[in-house]
Amino acid sequence: MDHQHGRLLVVGGTHGNERTAPWILQCWEAQPALFASPLPTTNCIGNPEAYGANRRYMDRDLNRCFTEALLRDRNCTVREVSRARELVDTYGPNGKNPHSLVLDLHTTTAAMGSSVVVCGERPVDLALAALVHQAIGIPIYLFRINEEHPEECGFLVRRWPCGLVLEVGPVAQGIVDMGTVRKTAACLESVLAVLGDCLRSKAKLPESVVVHRHLASLDWPRDGDGRRIAGLHPDRSQWDWTVLLPGDPLFLMETGETIAYQGEEPVWPVFCNEASYEEKGIALSLTQREIKTPPADGLEALLALLGS
Amino acid sequence: MDHQHGRLLVVGGTHGNERTAPWILQCWEAQPALFASPLPTTNCIGNPEAYGANRRYMDRDLNRCFTEALLRDRNCTVREVSRARELVDTYGPNGKNPHSLVLDLHTTTAAMGSSVVVCGERPVDLALAALVHQAIGIPIYLFRINEEHPEECGFLVRRWPCGLVLEVGPVAQGIVDMGTVRKTAACLESVLAVLGDCLRSKAKLPESVVVHRHLASLDWPRDGDGRRIAGLHPDRSQWDWTVLLPGDPLFLMETGETIAYQGEEPVWPVFCNEASYEEKGIALSLTQREIKTPPADGLEALLALLGS
Repeated sequence: MDHQHGRLLVVGGTHGNERTAPWILQCWEAQPALFASPLPTTNCIGNPEAYGANRRYMDRDLNRCFTEALLRDRNCTVREVSRARELVDTYGPNGKNPHSLVLDLHTTTAAMGSSVVVCGERPVDLALAALVHQAIGIPIYLFRINEEHPEECGFLVRRWPCGLVLEVGPVAQGIVDMGTVRKTAACLESVLAVLGDCLRSKAKLPESVVVHRHLASLDWPRDGDGRRIAGLHPDRSQWDWTVLLPGDPLFLMETGETIAYQGEEPVWPVFCNEASYEEKGIALSLTQREIKTPPADGLEALLALLGS
Repeated sequence: MDHQHGRLLVVGGTHGNERTAPWILQCWEAQPALFASPLPTTNCIGNPEAYGANRRYMDRDLNRCFTEALLRDRNCTVREVSRARELVDTYGPNGKNPHSLVLDLHTTTAAMGSSVVVCGERPVDLALAALVHQAIGIPIYLFRINEEHPEECGFLVRRWPCGLVLEVGPVAQGIVDMGTVRKTAACLESVLAVLGDCLRSKAKLPESVVVHRHLASLDWPRDGDGRRIAGLHPDRSQWDWTVLLPGDPLFLMETGETIAYQGEEPVWPVFCNEASYEEKGIALSLTQREIKTPPADGLEALLALLGS
């Protein structure tokens, strides 16, 4: 084991039909100089079987399978649970080939641009996200962990001491779009540069960052048979990251009727029209915008993990 | 049977994960005044089972199942072949509820905008496509029928005396994007207006139209294991409908190498980065641009079908 430096795991294809990151990792393998990592770095395809089948998953969303309970349940035959266990046993902090940091590269069909998703509020993740935000300006989405809800726990990044999700869109599932490749590569480069700054003791947290804290997800209006009967209202030209005020048009019903947003406070929507969330009953998620002081102890924890 | 007028069948969801047209048909049902059809018109979901599952198809691409051989083979257990037979037996020109014209509404992940696809070169289809092109300006793609190749025959529209495919993109599979809904609705409105002109004897063919005739489809460069090792070259900002000259950059390899287009003539690519064509081994299709005189006998045949 290398005690000098932390190791970085870069995962693409956690969802098998998000093909941008696997393509980048494939190019990186063919061109080792494509990205300069300041740390010993391992690349892997999160869900190789689903990637081969060009499907999000085979049995279950891999990125909801990393709960303690599922990882412990050796009788579970769900393919993604076995794969989650394999990833943790191989690359986890106590695995055969231990890694201390993970980047999980995703795409979305939502027109969100590039963003960094923090799952939970570990100071170390917040510190790294704040440094990335400072470096490249992409928004931060703070997703809450809710162990009571199967869609709100079990994220890959949580099984490593530090981990971020990079999310880039809009791009259709199943394709490699070179514009999306470029945006994702720019985010990856930025994280690698930030980690290099940390190793050279040059990282300095910003005094404050704007974060978007998850509040709730909204389902589509549905009829008695569960059939979806609305779309996102066309009068908003931009949905993601753009304030939605009480009374603003929210849904356009099949009848032509407009449903206004009923909340009492301004919210900032994200993941509007993410194709894979249809089955989760999520039309969009709502966040509140906050100014947050990045935690100094998070940066200390990050530096300790990096072994710098 | 109504011998006064032809009947129009409008199909959405021939591919179950192309959700724009089913949404439009759902709105049309909820708001009968949404579109004014000059003909008795029936709407239907092409592949309801795949639509319910949010998949392109269950067993086989429905829009390749309308061959004479498959429709005759009563022992075939492929779900889409049974559905094709059901559609023909119900709404076909000799079905229980006969229709003489069909519109098949599709979307693509390719950034093609709106277009009209003519499968084969039936004069009646060419005449209607020319009228639509004249009315709304969208490009015409002439797809060849090749009974020897399972991917190049068996199209739904060919089982009706007259039929066009309307294709709108780019949009991700699995979502309803209101911009794409608007573009598709505009195309549908235009076809209905053209048919109204025909019924009022006001339709006049343009003297000439530009068409894009299918030449060939190109697969991605692959390695010995069949793994794709290239993407569309990022130096072209627009791929579809934009001339590709001999020597122009075509593919960017995983190694960073550029592969130039090797053909001897200028071509116009279409369906660049269509997600569902990955499994068909199609990276993009090439067309040649031609000026064509719309066939007068095609317009006569159309008017006869309309019973005007």
